[in-house]
Amino acid sequence: MSILLRGGLVIYGEGFEPVRADVLIEGDRIVRVARGISAEADEVIDASGRVIIPGLINAHTHSPMTLLRGLADDLPLMEWLQNYIWPAERKLGRREVYWGALLGLIEMAKSGTTTFVDMYFHMDAVAEAVMKVGLRAFLGYGMVDLGNEEKRKAEIRETERFMKFIEELGDRRINFILAPHAPYTCSPECLRWVAERAREGILVTIHLAETREEVKEIKERYGMTPVQLLDSLGLLTPGTIAAHGVWLDERDAKILATREVTIVHCPASNMKLASGVMPLKMLLKAGVNVALGTDGAASNNNLDMLEEMKLVALLHKVHTLDPTVADAKMVLRMATVHGARALGLKAGIIKEGYLADLAVIDFRRPHLRPLNDPVSHLVYSARGGDVEDLIVAGKIVMLDGEVLGVDEEKVLDKVENIREVVI
Amino acid sequence: MSILLRGGLVIYGEGFEPVRADVLIEGDRIVRVARGISAEADEVIDASGRVIIPGLINAHTHSPMTLLRGLADDLPLMEWLQNYIWPAERKLGRREVYWGALLGLIEMAKSGTTTFVDMYFHMDAVAEAVMKVGLRAFLGYGMVDLGNEEKRKAEIRETERFMKFIEELGDRRINFILAPHAPYTCSPECLRWVAERAREGILVTIHLAETREEVKEIKERYGMTPVQLLDSLGLLTPGTIAAHGVWLDERDAKILATREVTIVHCPASNMKLASGVMPLKMLLKAGVNVALGTDGAASNNNLDMLEEMKLVALLHKVHTLDPTVADAKMVLRMATVHGARALGLKAGIIKEGYLADLAVIDFRRPHLRPLNDPVSHLVYSARGGDVEDLIVAGKIVMLDGEVLGVDEEKVLDKVENIREVVI
Repeated sequence: MSILLRGGLVIYGEGFEPVRADVLIEGDRIVRVARGISAEADEVIDASGRVIIPGLINAHTHSPMTLLRGLADDLPLMEWLQNYIWPAERKLGRREVYWGALLGLIEMAKSGTTTFVDMYFHMDAVAEAVMKVGLRAFLGYGMVDLGNEEKRKAEIRETERFMKFIEELGDRRINFILAPHAPYTCSPECLRWVAERAREGILVTIHLAETREEVKEIKERYGMTPVQLLDSLGLLTPGTIAAHGVWLDERDAKILATREVTIVHCPASNMKLASGVMPLKMLLKAGVNVALGTDGAASNNNLDMLEEMKLVALLHKVHTLDPTVADAKMVLRMATVHGARALGLKAGIIKEGYLADLAVIDFRRPHLRPLNDPVSHLVYSARGGDVEDLIVAGKIVMLDGEVLGVDEEKVLDKVENIREVVI
Repeated sequence: MSILLRGGLVIYGEGFEPVRADVLIEGDRIVRVARGISAEADEVIDASGRVIIPGLINAHTHSPMTLLRGLADDLPLMEWLQNYIWPAERKLGRREVYWGALLGLIEMAKSGTTTFVDMYFHMDAVAEAVMKVGLRAFLGYGMVDLGNEEKRKAEIRETERFMKFIEELGDRRINFILAPHAPYTCSPECLRWVAERAREGILVTIHLAETREEVKEIKERYGMTPVQLLDSLGLLTPGTIAAHGVWLDERDAKILATREVTIVHCPASNMKLASGVMPLKMLLKAGVNVALGTDGAASNNNLDMLEEMKLVALLHKVHTLDPTVADAKMVLRMATVHGARALGLKAGIIKEGYLADLAVIDFRRPHLRPLNDPVSHLVYSARGGDVEDLIVAGKIVMLDGEVLGVDEEKVLDKVENIREVVI
């Protein structure tokens, strides 16, 4: 299978330089980026007047939570969780998770995301949804043992079962990731078990230092910060992808940098839940790899990485009162290259030899004109709906705004029915 | 002329309650909102599966600055202005302003804005663009005298000429507004002249307390805060619409509340330029009318009021570490009712007797499902491109995403040509 994208403006290479070029894809790789490629291809896509960007990497989400979008807002975190989110989640079975994940996948595809890291339950159903749509996924069963030994054993069994399930799927786009929920919901024993698997090279994702209360609680319980705790348990590795990292001090940052951990910034969620402002400048200065995520739709309330990029830039400029912080290219790197680095993917860049994960955006739209600076427009002016085509692993996932693998209308009806009947 | 919107979900009345109803428009007013209206109408719009909202009011922008979108970002304010924005603006003649404003108008229409307050130069050209598109506009020639008497006289002449020009247009949707640029660019004499006109009931818009530097400069020059200065000159009236208000103290807030001044919050611009966080909670508590604006596209970089609403909510939650601040309905009020109050319009609400300024949004989209809460979705999940129809003063401005009065493709070509040749 080969695809030729013709005549687009390509945001090329590590420097995100806009160049007029064709892009030739063979198998799951980009094989050539040049003007006037004359090769034959199975599919030719006319990209003229459009901009070709590396696919966005949503490094932290809970895709089925689209079902809970707008269910409750503007509430303190614990009230929101205890009175609205957790009771609703208890009503979600395998079927609901499947349709919720499908909705999330369609939404991600339509806003330019090619890869995502997911943590939830009934993850077989999520995997099934991913196979239909065709994104690149890292799927983790969210382990929560709350210090209960029986529960821990059950969580470990489920994790092992799910890992085997993914292995047997044999789809290179669908990957397993260990997903202990957080230092405050998982016992040290549980986290140590995860750390042993991580030592074998398996990726791990976890929530870390999201709220001030979490840090306080962990300090009281263990006499350490959450970062120090995870480090003492051997859970901080180059394959560890920790979401949020809002309440980190310089010592934490140094540990994270030394261990080559990735922190996933989720600005919309942190802002909406009033968790706080993650110390982006400090982390980058310490040399921490910072990727970007939307978190679940219940605390965002969408899965639009283009919007998320703008939020990063705006939030950190105003927070530091420094407009030079989080410039457009830096933010685009977070949403692409940094995510790819976290996941060990040769992706996030449009260049020969890289994975063919990319999005084509229609720039013939009023809010994206005139074309003073395509990268600026991408970060500051574009929005999810501007994405038209999406290619993942050299396969066309979306064409002209239509996600090919699913009946979108049916998905919209199903989730509406779930809202009416189940939630 | 009458229009019947059939079968939509109407965000009704002061409480923004979602109700299934038809909306009947006669002339420029909403005359009935009820189920199963059987009246004949000149135009019938099928709104089923869609949500009808009051048109958004962008209370502060510079529409022709779309031309400078993305021209320069991530820079300190004065470097940005002196090295990029002002030199580019000097190249803009009447023709460029016309096409830039048209681009801005199309963008605003497409993101649900029915009314906007504009300040720029070559405002005749902006008025001409408004007539083509059909939005409700309050147009002001931006006066800057920098203490120079000759310049002041010229600015006053231009203002008087433009006021007469608008009067003679005789279009009820196109209104004149006085627009002294700011306390630091206009002399007290200039501001006093404006205050005299304001006393006759003419609306005024001005930039106010945008940056810390401005407040410092005004205090050094006049021994007062910018608010106190304007008050001492008689410029604070119920018809005064002051943009930004980032650096205000409690005494300022009390004055603004007493004088019934409107402050226009521009979160994207304040964040991007790192101006600071306006004290929203404090202003609301003091009883100040706070409206919402996008500012110009050069510092935003779009004119999307739906995005702006989300930013208000997110910014103030994280800034105060209180998730209950700036809830969805409050933010929607800022973008509608508060703007209408500032401008003396019976608008911003869908209800019998109100101006027929409204937008129809397609909610059959993945990121707006399931429909747990339409107002939450509007503020937290929707984006400009979701708006399909727009009605202003009982006239259809946009239908199925097509702005009727203009050739959009031609506008896109023209602004691109201006970028290549002029800027």
